[in-house]
Amino acid sequence: MKIMVQKFGGTSVASKERRQMVVEKIANAKREGYQVVVVVSAMGRKGDPYATDTLKELALDNTFDCSLRHLDLLMACGEIISSAVLASSLEADGYRVEALTGFQAGILTDDTFGNADILSVGTNKIFSHLEEDKIVIVAGFQGSTQDGEITTLGRGGSDTTAAALGVALNADCVEIYTDVDGIMTADPNIVPKAQIINEINYDEVFQMAEKGAKVIHPRAVEIAHYGNIPLKIKNTMSSHPGTCICNCRKNGTTPYSSKCSTQLLTAITHKDDITQVSLSMKEPLQKDSLILSDLAEANISIDIINFFVDKKIFTILTPQRSALEKILQNHKVEYSILDRCSKVTIVGSRITGIPGVMATVVYALAKENIQILQTSDSHATISCLVKEEDAKKAVNLLHEAFHLGRQ
Amino acid sequence: MKIMVQKFGGTSVASKERRQMVVEKIANAKREGYQVVVVVSAMGRKGDPYATDTLKELALDNTFDCSLRHLDLLMACGEIISSAVLASSLEADGYRVEALTGFQAGILTDDTFGNADILSVGTNKIFSHLEEDKIVIVAGFQGSTQDGEITTLGRGGSDTTAAALGVALNADCVEIYTDVDGIMTADPNIVPKAQIINEINYDEVFQMAEKGAKVIHPRAVEIAHYGNIPLKIKNTMSSHPGTCICNCRKNGTTPYSSKCSTQLLTAITHKDDITQVSLSMKEPLQKDSLILSDLAEANISIDIINFFVDKKIFTILTPQRSALEKILQNHKVEYSILDRCSKVTIVGSRITGIPGVMATVVYALAKENIQILQTSDSHATISCLVKEEDAKKAVNLLHEAFHLGRQ
Repeated sequence: MKIMVQKFGGTSVASKERRQMVVEKIANAKREGYQVVVVVSAMGRKGDPYATDTLKELALDNTFDCSLRHLDLLMACGEIISSAVLASSLEADGYRVEALTGFQAGILTDDTFGNADILSVGTNKIFSHLEEDKIVIVAGFQGSTQDGEITTLGRGGSDTTAAALGVALNADCVEIYTDVDGIMTADPNIVPKAQIINEINYDEVFQMAEKGAKVIHPRAVEIAHYGNIPLKIKNTMSSHPGTCICNCRKNGTTPYSSKCSTQLLTAITHKDDITQVSLSMKEPLQKDSLILSDLAEANISIDIINFFVDKKIFTILTPQRSALEKILQNHKVEYSILDRCSKVTIVGSRITGIPGVMATVVYALAKENIQILQTSDSHATISCLVKEEDAKKAVNLLHEAFHLGRQ
Repeated sequence: MKIMVQKFGGTSVASKERRQMVVEKIANAKREGYQVVVVVSAMGRKGDPYATDTLKELALDNTFDCSLRHLDLLMACGEIISSAVLASSLEADGYRVEALTGFQAGILTDDTFGNADILSVGTNKIFSHLEEDKIVIVAGFQGSTQDGEITTLGRGGSDTTAAALGVALNADCVEIYTDVDGIMTADPNIVPKAQIINEINYDEVFQMAEKGAKVIHPRAVEIAHYGNIPLKIKNTMSSHPGTCICNCRKNGTTPYSSKCSTQLLTAITHKDDITQVSLSMKEPLQKDSLILSDLAEANISIDIINFFVDKKIFTILTPQRSALEKILQNHKVEYSILDRCSKVTIVGSRITGIPGVMATVVYALAKENIQILQTSDSHATISCLVKEEDAKKAVNLLHEAFHLGRQ
């Protein structure tokens, strides 16, 4: 059985016109011979995990002291409403449909209400509906505990539901519908020449998300990667083929060969609002670990960590600056702070061991006098900390230097 | 059809006693219902890509000016001899066997003689033999070009052949037989409490290999990862279950959840013979990129790169020191050098975003007064540069601090 999982955001089901577009996407998949499982988000929950939630506001505005357990019961309704609405649209068009809650769909979670993790996905019910040639709609962002209590998922929301269903059903593909044509080589608001990426591998997307690009929640990518299920980012409003996240190889390469790559890099990301912190300490190292423990305890995550014998340099997110300073002052260490920095990162899983990549980065920035405040690199990324005012230019220069404008 | 690919090193077929052990491993797989494809290395080529090669010495000792093309033709014989020898052992035990050269097995490569990359693997011939219940033996480390010229593979040698066959045949498992029971949490010569790792994911092995552990060639891991084929490292001389490299999850976790991990880290690696280089330059940044280009051109790979406005710190492999100094002196930059350093790396794909990991590393080393000369981190690793004399102690302290001794 060829199976496709399609995930649509809440906005896609919020009006009749948009629902018709969703119906069209589902109809296309059916025409191509797929059995289709659709995952939907709540209408108020635009883009799932990042935005405000109408139902939540409803509960909290009433200042009624809602337990997490009951809040989850309430929150789960958003997706169930979307499911029912979409189901009726499809039925009106003559399709046979089965709409399921997360619980009904067999999505078992732990009992961390409000932030549950999926433990397993039972597939019997879904398979039996698919075998009857029905379209199955599953309410995203939710599941239930072993005891049958309704939970909502934390990280990744409905994207995670779609990826987990894709893996459990061993789907041929999971399509995540958004309002953009796909993942881009850079933020198009900053780089006018940014292009849609045709294919990208799981690790690269993971790195992009971690390094500041708002693409798809890394948790959903991680799950799809685990099951080796291709994840496609597509646009509800267009017929663009979108971006395929998979164990892909770029043009001209084969799975067995890493030569003949036409393009070294996949994308450039950037993240603003970063503060660089330098500690000059000649004291015993043990003090460092005490400071680090205090930072960890205060949930201040540190990044671009470069420790040397007499100097420790790292970055934090600017909003955490005052919490950081309190800790440093407690420990009576000398420190200096540089606000308004941006981290610009090049992402490409094939830069490992390729000589001259760092030289290209430094040259591109240096010839326009952009100061590199700090660097870090991993097997698939090189990050440069620059002044926030230089970030836009830096992203464009690197986009140009690595020829990302011509895909 | 359940298919298993088993790869044996040249030493395993070099004596009758050892060949009997290989036959036993193959017989076990047949008993478990697998159709078996065996890949063998040349007898002289102990551990494939790292060691000297008897046939090569033969050619070069004669100081006859051997073209790469002819050298490959010669070199390929080593594996063909092993294949024929093993085939006759199996036949003597009553098995039906088909021994194939890389060319016969359908392994098509590019024409980079001596360092060819596999382009594709034709599987028709192998499948037809397997369907007749025959054991297929394939000579590792070789293939042929489109024009039918014999090539030998570069990176990864016979391990790469085995992984590529595993992917092409969509095997259930690829077993790589070695002289150790599996991949260990640290070098057992250094850490007496080092344990065999039961399961490890592709990314972690890749990181381990890159960070100094001689486990399996990263190229083979990359190919297996591409096809999502489990790769097992096992011992020819024992019946230990070995280490499984796969998209695994540790005890107590599910594919969908990342909570409840019992162990944060997977392994600790270290790499000696590293030189730390510090450049103090206040000159325009563009000079940096010129130096970097020169280093790239001279094939000096730089690592743990930390660039700041007025200071650039990085490491090189000590043997490349004199080449480096020549370049730095050409550019008339001030520099200082610290030899006899070691890079100690903790590897664990689940350390991303876990607060306090860095604090644990620093604390473990600081409390025994081990100086951290430099650090770098990625989503799955933290590396500390220490003095070579401290390396052994540092690896043990970190092994202890992250409880790797009790698996």
